[in-house]
Amino acid sequence: MSNKILIVGGVAGGASAAARLRRLDENAEIVMFERGTYISFANCGLPYYIGETIKDRSKLMVQTPENLKARFNIDIRINSDVIGVDTQAKKVRVNSADQGTYEESYDYLILSPGAKPIKPLIPGIDSEFIFTVRNIPDTDRIKSYVDLAGTRSAIVIGGGFIGIEMAESLRERGLDVSLIEAAPHILAPFDSEMVAFAEKEMTDHGVKLVLGDGVEAFHDKEKGIEVSLKSGLQLSADLVILAIGVTPDTEFIKKSGIELGARGHIIVNEYMQTNIDGVYAVGDAVETTDLDGQRAMVPLAGPANKQGRIAADNIHGLNTVYKGTQGTSIIKVFSLTGASTGFNERTLQRMNVPYRTIYVHPNSHAGYYPGSKAIAMKLLFNDEGRILGAQAFGSEGVDKRIDVIATVLRLKGTVDDLAELELAYAPPFSSAKDPVNMAGYLAQNVLSGQLDIFTVKDLETLQPEQVLLDVRTAAEYEQGHIDGAVLIPVDELRERMNELDKDKEIYAYCGVGIRGYIAARILTEHGYKVKNLTGGYRTYEMSKYSPK
Amino acid sequence: MSNKILIVGGVAGGASAAARLRRLDENAEIVMFERGTYISFANCGLPYYIGETIKDRSKLMVQTPENLKARFNIDIRINSDVIGVDTQAKKVRVNSADQGTYEESYDYLILSPGAKPIKPLIPGIDSEFIFTVRNIPDTDRIKSYVDLAGTRSAIVIGGGFIGIEMAESLRERGLDVSLIEAAPHILAPFDSEMVAFAEKEMTDHGVKLVLGDGVEAFHDKEKGIEVSLKSGLQLSADLVILAIGVTPDTEFIKKSGIELGARGHIIVNEYMQTNIDGVYAVGDAVETTDLDGQRAMVPLAGPANKQGRIAADNIHGLNTVYKGTQGTSIIKVFSLTGASTGFNERTLQRMNVPYRTIYVHPNSHAGYYPGSKAIAMKLLFNDEGRILGAQAFGSEGVDKRIDVIATVLRLKGTVDDLAELELAYAPPFSSAKDPVNMAGYLAQNVLSGQLDIFTVKDLETLQPEQVLLDVRTAAEYEQGHIDGAVLIPVDELRERMNELDKDKEIYAYCGVGIRGYIAARILTEHGYKVKNLTGGYRTYEMSKYSPK
Repeated sequence: MSNKILIVGGVAGGASAAARLRRLDENAEIVMFERGTYISFANCGLPYYIGETIKDRSKLMVQTPENLKARFNIDIRINSDVIGVDTQAKKVRVNSADQGTYEESYDYLILSPGAKPIKPLIPGIDSEFIFTVRNIPDTDRIKSYVDLAGTRSAIVIGGGFIGIEMAESLRERGLDVSLIEAAPHILAPFDSEMVAFAEKEMTDHGVKLVLGDGVEAFHDKEKGIEVSLKSGLQLSADLVILAIGVTPDTEFIKKSGIELGARGHIIVNEYMQTNIDGVYAVGDAVETTDLDGQRAMVPLAGPANKQGRIAADNIHGLNTVYKGTQGTSIIKVFSLTGASTGFNERTLQRMNVPYRTIYVHPNSHAGYYPGSKAIAMKLLFNDEGRILGAQAFGSEGVDKRIDVIATVLRLKGTVDDLAELELAYAPPFSSAKDPVNMAGYLAQNVLSGQLDIFTVKDLETLQPEQVLLDVRTAAEYEQGHIDGAVLIPVDELRERMNELDKDKEIYAYCGVGIRGYIAARILTEHGYKVKNLTGGYRTYEMSKYSPK
Repeated sequence: MSNKILIVGGVAGGASAAARLRRLDENAEIVMFERGTYISFANCGLPYYIGETIKDRSKLMVQTPENLKARFNIDIRINSDVIGVDTQAKKVRVNSADQGTYEESYDYLILSPGAKPIKPLIPGIDSEFIFTVRNIPDTDRIKSYVDLAGTRSAIVIGGGFIGIEMAESLRERGLDVSLIEAAPHILAPFDSEMVAFAEKEMTDHGVKLVLGDGVEAFHDKEKGIEVSLKSGLQLSADLVILAIGVTPDTEFIKKSGIELGARGHIIVNEYMQTNIDGVYAVGDAVETTDLDGQRAMVPLAGPANKQGRIAADNIHGLNTVYKGTQGTSIIKVFSLTGASTGFNERTLQRMNVPYRTIYVHPNSHAGYYPGSKAIAMKLLFNDEGRILGAQAFGSEGVDKRIDVIATVLRLKGTVDDLAELELAYAPPFSSAKDPVNMAGYLAQNVLSGQLDIFTVKDLETLQPEQVLLDVRTAAEYEQGHIDGAVLIPVDELRERMNELDKDKEIYAYCGVGIRGYIAARILTEHGYKVKNLTGGYRTYEMSKYSPK
């Protein structure tokens, strides 16, 4: 007897599950319900269509119901909202635009309802000038409005991935764009001194950033909308994009007995199974685990697609396991790329996990080959050398380095592995010691005690018995240095170290940390107590950066 | 008492060792001998300077003797040829341009003599029109000659990395370029059906490829040189670049008691130690091991730099181990990139290691975001799923995917790891399922028996009781198909499968392998015996490619 499988939601996770199910079982009856008109659309591409980087609207339709039906023999029911699940009777209740309300039975159920934009109860939130970005109709609405001759300005609320991508896209359409973020910084996956690169890039491209401020009220105007902020600031624009986050779209199963987490996520085990036999869930609406088995909610397309496949495998009895998410993510910010994997410092602190931090600023490829650009990398690891997380910003090769570190992290590797990796080198692509190797070497030096480092935060508590030493050149020093720093260029240090008091602890720094390391080694070997500023003046500058 | 360390050779491995030694020990006496005038130059950049991609000659000097002296307090002796080593007396014999011949004693010796271009005993080999590419003076000579108004054509002998890079560089300077390779194909790290991408790119850019042919003799002409090939073909040009390979430059230690391999490489253990106490060796001149402990000689810059550091560590007592090489390499071929890691098919066959092969042709990033290009990937793995090697060609994102697979290979991961990796996804960078994930999924399907595959080679032995089935569209079929193939588009297969004889084995193929996989699943589930051509028609075409 063949199985009947219902899938709720026809985008990333749902579509992935449907295709895999059919490949596994030609005879299964597979029905996919999609609330909207479009299935399997390019949800990550929506901002880029509004920004006209993607010019052809039809490209957003990765699959049409017709194609999916022809190739995979899936019974696709669009405009069909699943409004309830009876897990006892194994039935779902469907509200169909064409057929009204009906019930459909199942042997297996896969829930892939996704998450919807949060709309907080702020006065004026229902203004017609406020838009959210979830699906094709949302996108069409925003684009038509932006296409109008009179549309000149936009306010984006929320500095997450979608907020940043929308701000960039609208700016590229020539609009005046302001972005408001309630937290002190945008892009929560990054620590503040790293995300400064993105904030600077946004500011440099004319996006006005308002950080640490929230919306008090929206007021419709004759044309456009006014936003009153908690700080008292008033901004107005022709439209508002609301992108403060998403919440799982799981209202319809609240009474089904399917277990939900505190914030409404469907709780699943490593087989993507819910607490109810035969009911699976995948994608943005689920709560899974991270690599260490801690609960995690990561609304990202990569995990959603993988989970869809895994749910299908398990329904078919293949016993495939989802080993958890590590939050690898990436964003283009104008000509810059930012990417991260694993935990950031904020999260490690919250979890009380001890960690160490280093920064490196290597070239994306051999410096002598044209086009090489610095990559700012931050690596977090523990005392045993295990990689806990990494973040990077740069304009070339950022994705590659984070992917490599994400791979080592996933395989539970250490900083020794980073140092030893044999990566592909030719001058257009890397250096003989790849940036990932460099991060590994530095982390090894820190763990072995070869180098003692300090971070920008430590500068705040510098004492009179501590000397701040700039080992760059005089020219670099004059262009900007940390207050109170004494200058001795590293290449003169062997001759001039007697100028330094051996009883005082020396806090050395250079441009990116390399010369400071050499200086620290020279001085240490001569009996001085020395620490080196990891990441050097470049990381210092970004730590102090504030968008104006 | 401080150590005295002599380093023979001042480029990649030697310079890396010197800098690390000084960082570890401020008091050591470090002397570096370099036969030439330049140390630590950009040897991988030389072809690009000749091709004028690198315009500024001074960029080739990564370090000058003055800089290295100032920063690391290294006693650098250029124009100083080490001509002998007395391991009993712990002395080297130096032939210095300035000081004549003298001896220098050591506590530790690091040999980093590199490898030199092979110059076979072919009549006419000493022609002034024949150049090799090893160092700055070679490069200057070639560039001055190319810069001459009358220089219009070049013949490159040898299709290795340097040969290809030189052919490209000279072509970019506007010369007529022919490349002669004695093997049936260029770029030995790649299997022939993969390297066809590079051969096509070369041909498309006007480089004439002569494969499977060797040089019989060179004849100087009034202006330029004539090359007589074994096939009888005669070519003439203004200059010849000889790049048929390198041989370790170890003549000077032949009588030292330091153990050399059959081809003259210095044999070292995992500490980069030779058989003689206190004598270490690194770089292109050494024979180390691969990840499985087999002997390996890999003259590449990445390993050389890492080995230099490891030798320094061990001299300082840090006990750092070189875990072996995996031959990760990469090359730019005009607008194409080719990269590989681990073993290729040829090598696995020679070693009698059983393996499986798959091909995928995924997009470099989301197809709906502009600029996406197909990557041709080949993955080799064993029955337990362990990764044995990978090769890729494409114009974007090739380096990233090979680096990720190289990382999994190094950490002894499996195809399951490839499938599960959580890599950074946003539309400009990848797809929700990254090409590496796709390769992993396909390999899993093959290992689990979910999909039975065949390769282009199997077509040669196709029997009458086997049916070749093209499942692409009629339009694709008409543009080119494999001889004898029956056409049933995959989307019509469920209705038309009765046209196929159930007693015959079906060999299905499509464009890149995806539709063929679906067709295979449909037919298998209906009781047919089916195999799918891995890599599809695209891999078939490249397998049949022959540069004309």
